[in-house]
Amino acid sequence: MPSLGRARLREGDLIILGLDPGLGTTGWGLIAADGNRLTHIANGQIKTDAGMALATRLLALDLALTDLILEHQPNGAAVEEVFVNVNPQSTLKLGQARGVVLLAASRSGMEVGEYAARLVKKSVVGVGNASKDQVHAMVARLLPGAKVAGPDASDALAVAITHAHHLASARRIPRK
Amino acid sequence: MPSLGRARLREGDLIILGLDPGLGTTGWGLIAADGNRLTHIANGQIKTDAGMALATRLLALDLALTDLILEHQPNGAAVEEVFVNVNPQSTLKLGQARGVVLLAASRSGMEVGEYAARLVKKSVVGVGNASKDQVHAMVARLLPGAKVAGPDASDALAVAITHAHHLASARRIPRK
Repeated sequence: MPSLGRARLREGDLIILGLDPGLGTTGWGLIAADGNRLTHIANGQIKTDAGMALATRLLALDLALTDLILEHQPNGAAVEEVFVNVNPQSTLKLGQARGVVLLAASRSGMEVGEYAARLVKKSVVGVGNASKDQVHAMVARLLPGAKVAGPDASDALAVAITHAHHLASARRIPRK
Repeated sequence: MPSLGRARLREGDLIILGLDPGLGTTGWGLIAADGNRLTHIANGQIKTDAGMALATRLLALDLALTDLILEHQPNGAAVEEVFVNVNPQSTLKLGQARGVVLLAASRSGMEVGEYAARLVKKSVVGVGNASKDQVHAMVARLLPGAKVAGPDASDALAVAITHAHHLASARRIPRK
């Protein structure tokens, strides 16, 4: 697992877990955020075996996520809102994995931010209609030193960055 | 919770948990099966508050299922295979709840049987194109004394009955 290690983290950093759910591959990315200063912690992709029963695959996904959360103790989690234009069977599969991912975060007491794909692109690249390649290039640039495990891990890091930006702007708005 | 109590169960009975997943309402039904002799144990419907965040609703569903499984210690679980002809957003919602339901069963070490709707109807009523009302009437007849909590609980009992019939026929087939 590529990691910069916990030593680089400063007190006051929020650890954010971005997640890109999928039954076959779930991408994850952990960053530390202190306002708009972001540090990459780790990222990866959890794969489940298509030859196993559905319930077993969901259990494998849940166990991997639970391990990850226990190890890194993130303060918050974020996922992309789903754009459902694929076939219904794919939507159902995605939904089943997404339910397990949201549950794993929620069970650990984290609030889970959900962000529209457009907002993730705007937050990472600056424009809402950025291409996937542009997003991935900016993720690598915003998180220097991060060796990204694959496209799903990159998407997960992008949504973690979006969550960090959202928290930073929310903090700048004075509370009444 | 309507229940006949554990006292009626005999040694050798398999306790089967039927589940009808849904984000708003998940039906569940517990029966004891000794071959084709079926006994109703309990049934109910788990509802989650549409005003809460999605991850919180999934957590509430998971907690209720985990309690249920701990209390009744079922030996096996069964769900209906999903017929996805509704709109994609509904399919996604259903998928998320279904993922949590399958995980709860799987995490408790149970195998989860999945049955097509046609097979459930055939198993309970005798014909694969039976109406929902016919299924519900037969569920009540096959499980005398069961006070069924609602249509989702009835569907859950129907799939539990299907699983029991499946196990009974599997046992009649000599193993090589």
